[in-house]
Amino acid sequence: MSYFDAASSLPLHPVARQALLASLDEGWADPARVHREGRRARMLLDAARESAAESVGCRPDELYFTASGTHALHTGIAGALAGRRRAGRRLVVSAVEHSAVLHAAQAHERAGGTVREVGVARSGRVDAQEWGEALDTDCALACLQSANHEVGTLQPVEEAADHCARADVPLLVDAAQSLPWGPVPGRWALLTGSAHKWGGPAGVGLLAVRTGVRFAPPGPADERESGHAPGFENIPAVVAAAASLRAVRAEADAEAARLRALVETIRARVPALVPDTEVVGDPVHRLPHLVTFSCLYVDGEALLHALDAAGFSVSSGSSCTSSTLTPSHVLRAMGVLSEGNVRVSLPPGTSEEDVERFLGALPGVVERVRAHLGAPGAPVQGGGEEAELTVDARGKLCPLPVIELAKVIDQVPVGGTVRVLADDEAARLDIPAWCEMTGHAFEGAEGTVFRVRRVAG
Amino acid sequence: MSYFDAASSLPLHPVARQALLASLDEGWADPARVHREGRRARMLLDAARESAAESVGCRPDELYFTASGTHALHTGIAGALAGRRRAGRRLVVSAVEHSAVLHAAQAHERAGGTVREVGVARSGRVDAQEWGEALDTDCALACLQSANHEVGTLQPVEEAADHCARADVPLLVDAAQSLPWGPVPGRWALLTGSAHKWGGPAGVGLLAVRTGVRFAPPGPADERESGHAPGFENIPAVVAAAASLRAVRAEADAEAARLRALVETIRARVPALVPDTEVVGDPVHRLPHLVTFSCLYVDGEALLHALDAAGFSVSSGSSCTSSTLTPSHVLRAMGVLSEGNVRVSLPPGTSEEDVERFLGALPGVVERVRAHLGAPGAPVQGGGEEAELTVDARGKLCPLPVIELAKVIDQVPVGGTVRVLADDEAARLDIPAWCEMTGHAFEGAEGTVFRVRRVAG
Repeated sequence: MSYFDAASSLPLHPVARQALLASLDEGWADPARVHREGRRARMLLDAARESAAESVGCRPDELYFTASGTHALHTGIAGALAGRRRAGRRLVVSAVEHSAVLHAAQAHERAGGTVREVGVARSGRVDAQEWGEALDTDCALACLQSANHEVGTLQPVEEAADHCARADVPLLVDAAQSLPWGPVPGRWALLTGSAHKWGGPAGVGLLAVRTGVRFAPPGPADERESGHAPGFENIPAVVAAAASLRAVRAEADAEAARLRALVETIRARVPALVPDTEVVGDPVHRLPHLVTFSCLYVDGEALLHALDAAGFSVSSGSSCTSSTLTPSHVLRAMGVLSEGNVRVSLPPGTSEEDVERFLGALPGVVERVRAHLGAPGAPVQGGGEEAELTVDARGKLCPLPVIELAKVIDQVPVGGTVRVLADDEAARLDIPAWCEMTGHAFEGAEGTVFRVRRVAG
Repeated sequence: MSYFDAASSLPLHPVARQALLASLDEGWADPARVHREGRRARMLLDAARESAAESVGCRPDELYFTASGTHALHTGIAGALAGRRRAGRRLVVSAVEHSAVLHAAQAHERAGGTVREVGVARSGRVDAQEWGEALDTDCALACLQSANHEVGTLQPVEEAADHCARADVPLLVDAAQSLPWGPVPGRWALLTGSAHKWGGPAGVGLLAVRTGVRFAPPGPADERESGHAPGFENIPAVVAAAASLRAVRAEADAEAARLRALVETIRARVPALVPDTEVVGDPVHRLPHLVTFSCLYVDGEALLHALDAAGFSVSSGSSCTSSTLTPSHVLRAMGVLSEGNVRVSLPPGTSEEDVERFLGALPGVVERVRAHLGAPGAPVQGGGEEAELTVDARGKLCPLPVIELAKVIDQVPVGGTVRVLADDEAARLDIPAWCEMTGHAFEGAEGTVFRVRRVAG
């Protein structure tokens, strides 16, 4: 069994386990109490805060432990927006932020605020210039991830922070995916992280708020964590989180170099091994351990199940894995194919053999899933008779509309048109993406009607 | 060293430790993923939910795991208020609820809602009749703790729930202190708990919402816990929490009987051993393991430090222990003395010898703290010359105003008056309480002037 879903969660790091076990006996008491058990707990908490602050690159009194990365994001965004209410009500985010950020943005809109989403290139990367231009005078807060969780693209955080500093807008950086690999450079104002992403325990998020940033903690008052995170402190987990972050960092450079080479192998060989496949995400500015590709004529969930059965645990940005049927907002913002999307994120220690086994198994797995769905085989040569054909794929879910399209494209002459009737939301993304990959011309959509013109291949 | 602060937090129960260790290896993955690590995590989570729901007395699909008891309360209150917005904007709470409830109530008021506090008797107990009368037609939610965290008084939850059901108002029960001892009876609508109060790990709260209760989760949307608790699930901790609750319950009746006898001993002997001391809280309707008393002429923090030095870890509802200088809102609502308040809460397994050692040490500890503060010794017999004396204790903190008063009361003749000038907020509570305990007559306060008439003793 190979676990290639590090970006979702990692097993507990040995250092985290050791620190957790040691502090279960020392860190269970209430650190607000004056008795010796309380004081002992307080000392552990203070030491963990110092260590984690050093890893983050902030002062201990700027760092708060929250119940999760999501809590850190929700609190950081709501607190900074409330603290800057007089400056304005606009929130600027990139279109590829984590759903926790986008959900916080929706809550801000429901409360009467406004949100501007900054788009990304096909690589998933924000343009720093465009970022700077989005910062109006009424902007209260801007949020940019350090690295994308679905495709691994690094964002130009340092330049974005410079733009924000010039515009006097605080920048919140969601560093959940990059924090294991190193501190976030630049003049950020707020930063969040999540311990289980680096092999720390679940139940620990980090929220850094630089001194001088206006901040009004949301929700009911609470004395814990200087009012920034309500609820009894989870000290054993916090100690384990801080210790493992330090341990992971000590090996980050060497491990990044090693995994980067393995990912390079996957990036290069998957398109050659599996026809009609596109590797997505920035080829240069990227996380060392993560690679994402999309396969035509396959649905993501079926592919995940088939890979799981073959002994590989991967994830997908598309469709049903997150209990929703909508295509990933990240892939949509990038304008790349969402169907058959696979995210491979290698945990530290992944061997070359694991990766070779994966590359050996993948072509057969994809072929079987495609065959099961009735995907087209080799294209029929020559042209058909009809100048226009209509395929009715209404009521059929992704990837079936694209499969239907691919089956008939060679039945119209070069220059002829196929009209696809499709009401699955993913078709809006996947039909243009299919055209881009196969070289046919996407002529536009009107309601549920998509027009594709056959181009000579 | 004897740890008598179970009501704050308990060391990890052996069953919790065992379950935590076992599930660290099985429960670290994302339960929303379809791969085998994700499915394994999901199975652990589902099993923990079934077990905890059985302990709580609800259906598994009515129970959500939150990041802490405080999160459960904040979410439960905000969610129920939002869900019942059309029914009204009034929140009814008892005056002795946990600060997490009162802070949520303040947040509700800031958002335009109204709050009615129902007072308590000198025992700390709500009158069920009065509770029923507080439920107006515009009442959206009522909150009543099952047992008070500072004095151990049990509330008439079952009758309160009946009143609520008749008025068609959902009742939220904060069961943090009583849940280790048994399920909460009656027709409650929502219920909260906190795992570290029963020997489970920190980082786990319970929120039960009965089917049919209107509920709109507050804050940004999130898919975890059916939208009731954002953030990555802390499965190893949740498993440990559920397992230890079951284990604690298996021994609850026997342990309750044993600790009840030890508490009875403390209740009976402390007033005899330590002069000018009052045991507070309901003598009959009370938690088995908790007893609170207040000592005149002592400040709570000094007493905690002295007891800590003598090897006893206890807590105090009064003053500085929670980093605020205001007297406990619980003791104030009860109208009892707040100065020199000590809460003894015995963990399971406390031995008779531990309690005897405590009772042996307490009189000397209190005496030393009193001597250090210059507390009065034996009363001077006879009366003084002046019919009215004035003591200026402005700028002096509790218990100094009461100490000054006690020093001079015998310098006025029986029927004479002492005027105490005191601007510490605690004096408002402690001077009347002192009168009640010593038999002198409190004649009222005007601004910072308190008038006390000497009565023949």
